[in-house]
Parts: sequence; C-alpha cells; structure tokens
Amino acid sequence: MTDLNLMRELSIQGETKIILVVLDGVGGLPMTPDGPTELEAAQTPHLDALAVRSICGMSTPVAPGISPGSGPGHLALFSYNPLQHEIGRGVLEALGIGFDLQSEDIAARGNFCTLDPETGLITDRRAGRIPTEVGARLCEKLRQISLPDVRTFVEPVKEYRFVLVLRGKGLHDGLTETDPQQVGKSPLPVEPIRPEAAHTAELLNQWIAEARKVLASEHPANGCNLRGIAKDPGLPKLPEIYKLRCGAIATYPMYRGVAQLAGMNILPTGDTIEEEAETLTQHWDEYDFFFFHVKKTDSRGEDGDFEAKVKVIEHFDAVLPDILALEPDVILVTGDHSTPAVWKAHSWHELPILLWSKYIRPDRVTQFGERPCMAGGLGHIHHVDLLPLAMAYAGRLIKFGA
Amino acid sequence: MTDLNLMRELSIQGETKIILVVLDGVGGLPMTPDGPTELEAAQTPHLDALAVRSICGMSTPVAPGISPGSGPGHLALFSYNPLQHEIGRGVLEALGIGFDLQSEDIAARGNFCTLDPETGLITDRRAGRIPTEVGARLCEKLRQISLPDVRTFVEPVKEYRFVLVLRGKGLHDGLTETDPQQVGKSPLPVEPIRPEAAHTAELLNQWIAEARKVLASEHPANGCNLRGIAKDPGLPKLPEIYKLRCGAIATYPMYRGVAQLAGMNILPTGDTIEEEAETLTQHWDEYDFFFFHVKKTDSRGEDGDFEAKVKVIEHFDAVLPDILALEPDVILVTGDHSTPAVWKAHSWHELPILLWSKYIRPDRVTQFGERPCMAGGLGHIHHVDLLPLAMAYAGRLIKFGA
Repeated sequence: MTDLNLMRELSIQGETKIILVVLDGVGGLPMTPDGPTELEAAQTPHLDALAVRSICGMSTPVAPGISPGSGPGHLALFSYNPLQHEIGRGVLEALGIGFDLQSEDIAARGNFCTLDPETGLITDRRAGRIPTEVGARLCEKLRQISLPDVRTFVEPVKEYRFVLVLRGKGLHDGLTETDPQQVGKSPLPVEPIRPEAAHTAELLNQWIAEARKVLASEHPANGCNLRGIAKDPGLPKLPEIYKLRCGAIATYPMYRGVAQLAGMNILPTGDTIEEEAETLTQHWDEYDFFFFHVKKTDSRGEDGDFEAKVKVIEHFDAVLPDILALEPDVILVTGDHSTPAVWKAHSWHELPILLWSKYIRPDRVTQFGERPCMAGGLGHIHHVDLLPLAMAYAGRLIKFGA
Repeated sequence: MTDLNLMRELSIQGETKIILVVLDGVGGLPMTPDGPTELEAAQTPHLDALAVRSICGMSTPVAPGISPGSGPGHLALFSYNPLQHEIGRGVLEALGIGFDLQSEDIAARGNFCTLDPETGLITDRRAGRIPTEVGARLCEKLRQISLPDVRTFVEPVKEYRFVLVLRGKGLHDGLTETDPQQVGKSPLPVEPIRPEAAHTAELLNQWIAEARKVLASEHPANGCNLRGIAKDPGLPKLPEIYKLRCGAIATYPMYRGVAQLAGMNILPTGDTIEEEAETLTQHWDEYDFFFFHVKKTDSRGEDGDFEAKVKVIEHFDAVLPDILALEPDVILVTGDHSTPAVWKAHSWHELPILLWSKYIRPDRVTQFGERPCMAGGLGHIHHVDLLPLAMAYAGRLIKFGA
C-alpha cells in the first residue's frame, strides 16, 4: 500500500514526463466462453506494438471483489487508498456538473420525491423520474430559499436529481442522509455524526422545511431528500507529494473534478480523443504529469454494446501515435475499473496494464489484452502502486535509506 | 486484506448460489523432482474440464511460510483474518469431538500426564500415551468433581487427550496454560491474563487440585495439564456479513464446528463424498452458500500415502458432475492448506485454486494441478479474499463509492 509520506520524502523534481492514460472501464469479458474480450477483439496495432516494448500485467483497482465507483477507481490511480479517502456522493455530483466547489463548501445530492400530502410519507423516492426540464424549473424555485449567513446553490443534474451546495463559515460534514431508502416512510432529519456538525444539520433541516413549502403545490415532485452530504475530502495534493506539475485532460466534468481534488490543473479540451491529444500536445512543455482520460469505453460498456466499446478502443489506438510522438519518458495505459459489456456495469475484474519506459524489462506480451496481460511481467499489482512505479521509471524517486 | 465491515456494507441478498469445495490438505508435492504432485497424478477429467472453463491460480492460506492448522486454514477460507481471529485449542478440540459448545462455555484441552508422587514434578507429559479406553475410564472418574455454581463436562478424545468444559455465569477466558512444556517441572497454576478472568482461574485451579486427588491412585496417568483454555471467539457471522444462507457439509465434527462458529447451519450427512453430494442436492433450495468439505485428502497426506491421496482426489472428481448438475452460479475448488504426502503434515505451500462463474475471464489453464495453476489468471492471491471474490462473481456485492 502506497505510503504518501514516503513518496513525499523520496520524490524529486526532474525533466522527465509521465502520461497516465485511463481508458475508463476498459476491462472486459468475453461474450461467449471462447470469445475475446472487448480489448482483445479490438484491432489495436499501436497498443500491441507498444506492448511488445513494454512490461504488462494485471491490476486490482481497490480490493478483490470490489467494483469501484468512478471516485474510488480514480483515487486509486492517483495513489490514494480509496478505503481511507472517500469522496462523498454530494461532492462527486457537484464535480460531475462542473460546479466550482470550494474547499469549505458542503455539497449534497438531492433527489426530488413524492410525498403523500396528508401523511408526509414518501410514495415515490424518484418523483416518477420527472423530466430534466421539470427538475431544472423546480431548482429555480428552490433558489428562493435563503439561510442565515450562508449562501445556497441549487443546480439541476438530470431528471429527479439535483445538487445543493452550502457556502459559508463554520460548515462541517459528518451528517446523516434524509432518504429512508424505502417508500411508506417519512424523510429523516439530517443528524450530525460529529458534534461540530450540529449547526450545519440545523441549517440543512431548515432548508428542507422551506423546500417542502416551496414544493407543496407541485406534483409529483412535492418533496426532496438529501444524500451524501459532504465536503471536499481535502486530499494531500499530488504536486506537493510528487513535485510534479500535473495536468488533467478529460472530457467529462466528474473526472476533471476528481483530478482537481488531487491538485491537478484542468486543461480545457474538446469532446473527442483527437482534441484531447491536441490539448496534450499544446501543454506538453508546461507539465510533468498528464492524466489523459477516455470516457466512452465505460459508457459503451454500460450500454452493453460490445462492438461500440471495441470501436472506442480502436479510436484511441488510432490516436496513440500522436501521443507517443511527444516522446514521454513513461506511459501507463490502463483503466479505473472494468465495465464488461456483458455485465453492463462497473465490475470488480482486474485491469490490464501496460507500462513503457526506457528502463523496463520487456516481458513476452505482444498484445494488449486481458489474457496476454495475465502472463505479463508486472504480475498482479494494485492501482495505488502505479503512480509510485511511474515516478521510479521517470527517475523521480531517490533511494530509500542509506 | 478483507474488510468485513466493508463486506457487510456492500453485500446484498440474491438468488445466486455459491459452492466452496474444500479438499482438505489437497496441495501436494512431487515425490521425486520430476514427478507429479498428488493432484497432478490423479486422473481428474471433470476437474480438468472445469479448469478449461474457469480461472485458476494459487492462494496462500494464512501468510508466506505459515503452515496453518485446520482452524486458521478454515477461518481464512471463510474470510476471517486468522491472525486476528484465533480459535483456542480447547474450543477446536471440543468441536472436534462434536461437543455442543455454547457461546459462554470455557473449553480446555486436557492432557493426562505422569507426576512423581513425592515431588509432584512431571515425569511424562503424555502419561505414556495411555490407550484411548483408559483415557475414557479416567474421564469418567473426573466427572465426579463438582465446582460451585458451574457445570463441568469431561469428554475423552484420544489416548491421553480429553476436553474439559465449564458452563455457567461469569466465566471469562484470557487464562494461562498449566503445561510447563518440559519434564522435571511442576504443572503451573492457571493464571488470569485479564482481571475479569480471575474467578475462572480459581475455579480451574480448584478443579485441577480435585483431579490430582481423584487420579492419585492411578498409574501412569496420575495428573493432568490444561491447555488452550478458551471461549467461542464470537466471530461476526457469515449470514449477517454476507446476507447468505450458509449450509455446511462435512463428515468430521471439527469442520462442522468451525463452520458453526462462522454462523453456518450444519447439514447432517453421511461418511462418503457421494453422501455429501446427496446432502447438497437435498438442501439445494434452502441455502445460498455451501461449504463442502472433503476430509480424506488430508488424512492420506498425513499418512504419507501418495497413492491413497491420489485416489481420494479421483473419488471427488467422480462425484463432481453431480455437484455441477445443480448449476451453481459460482464454484470454488481449493483446500485449507497443503498436506504433501512427502511431508506427512500440514505445510505452508500455496493451494491451487479454481473459480468458475459465467463472468470469469478464462485463462489458459487446462488441468487442475499445482504447476498449471501457477500460470493461472488469478495469479497469487490469499484465502481471505476468496469469499469476497465469490460474492462479486455471484452478483452479490454492490458498487463501492460513487
């Protein structure tokens, strides 16, 4: 398990450059017992040629059997132990819509729900999945609510989901959720888990009471629940730990958000992998470490669309020569978790991993795929160890002990 | 290392079924450097066919170099860290004879010994390994001893070994043993390691003093020592952690006992592997998880009888189709530890492991044996992680984090 204090002690500045390519959810499964996985089915001449010159292996994102969400999966890639550092759902949701969350803000995920007008009991936890436009209109109404000495932000997400952010002095997390997780019950009050969070709990309960009044005339969304009420986890920042100037290239806000929590600079980019590669090229001289995120491998896996996921991988492969042309000192290619098309969701399976630097011991892997990587020279490792490995291969970690 | 609290948080109920087959002590060694291990020598067409469709690997039961007893080996298989959860020897011994141990009972392993009648010093720690019948008769005599407010049970085990159980209110463990581990010394008094165990220590010392009187006229067993004085370790129960209805099928009491400590229901069965498979079939609808224990691989290994151990493995292989006919969602085949015939005892060697589910990535292993499994796609894993993996493959763990 990576010791961040040790990394802080051993890491040094340098001229070398590291690229971490995250093909989100790239790990797959065969659709039939004898078939290939998505990555194995994809025609990837550039990845395969790189694999020949690289050392490969398999990596567990969090722990055996654990299917990580995007938060824990990326924390592990950034060398934070995801079992120790948790990103609250409210924070992830705020980051996911590109909200400019500040370190003392309290963020909650809100869910519109339907309450029985007489008894106040929940009859539908998702308010009949109201259309996104309706959610947006209701958020507009909720912005009328004001709290003493605190600014509030209400931002629509999708359908019945929204984000509530409180900004002000003396706000604390360590708060329970209001969603009783079943219909036929009343929303629960927010309660402080830690004594210093008592005032924040009061404010949130006051906000919820006001929201009930504001929404009273609405149907079906006449109430709401707050979940995952949390602050920025205050991670130690990668630039401080590793003496790296870190740039993040990602097309989706949530990944930019997690990168920001880790202390990376966010590089504005377009929607395509080509545009991401252009961004990389443009900023090449300014940073030492690049997080390069490809989203759609995961999206197509969640859709259960094997062929479409294959196409995304092939798309990345076609762009890879532009990335390699920059001549990084270290390049790592892997994913944050598996999303096999046959499973249609994040899964617990290990990720294939490819590591190239001038200083690797080449193994016998000649194709970047799950089965070839099972026999790779890196063996079976863990995501939290990848960044320290990359640092070493980049000549940026001094000797430990005399 | 498996985090049982995390497992409790992520596990969900489901319709899927898991079978954990434990071929006790199955791991072996070649008798000559070029020879096969017991498992490799065995003709196992069904295991091999299953290996083709499975993902295989090697697993360390407790830690590198550690030869586990049956207790720690099974605790690890049931996902308890055996270095944190210890089952006292007295408890294991009581379970081993099928004693109905209750959660507040104090159990000790007793050893008859020979004392010099004049000095009271031990002259033989095993009382000349008296025959089992003599041990039984002496236990009968020891049952006369009564203690204030506490029931006592004295049960013969084998030769010079017996079990003493105290049942009553306010009994505590945390007690030293009386065996000085060498001849020429007196038995030591039982001493409390924790203050609350002082009264229990007094009771046991009183019982020992009475036992000296009762045995005074006997030879060579005119004294006794108490070892491994302990209570049920109070493990968190598997059905609660994993939301599994757990059934245990084992022909020997000790394994039924350990399964019971883990919260499994014990399914009465016969002496043969066929009868165990029938029990499995009969109870198939009632449970989600089955622990299926095959004892004799270990017994024949301890005998040093390579060929007989091979035969037990082949015997299991012949029954395997009946087990597979039930169509489990996940089946795991491994052992609790190795017992190579050439070593004639439990050993520290890794166990070959085979995991089948619809959602595995098949590797290139085509035979279930130690050498093929070394190149398996699971790599080198740990027993404590097997149950979390099985849970994931059974679709019974939700995503961790958002």
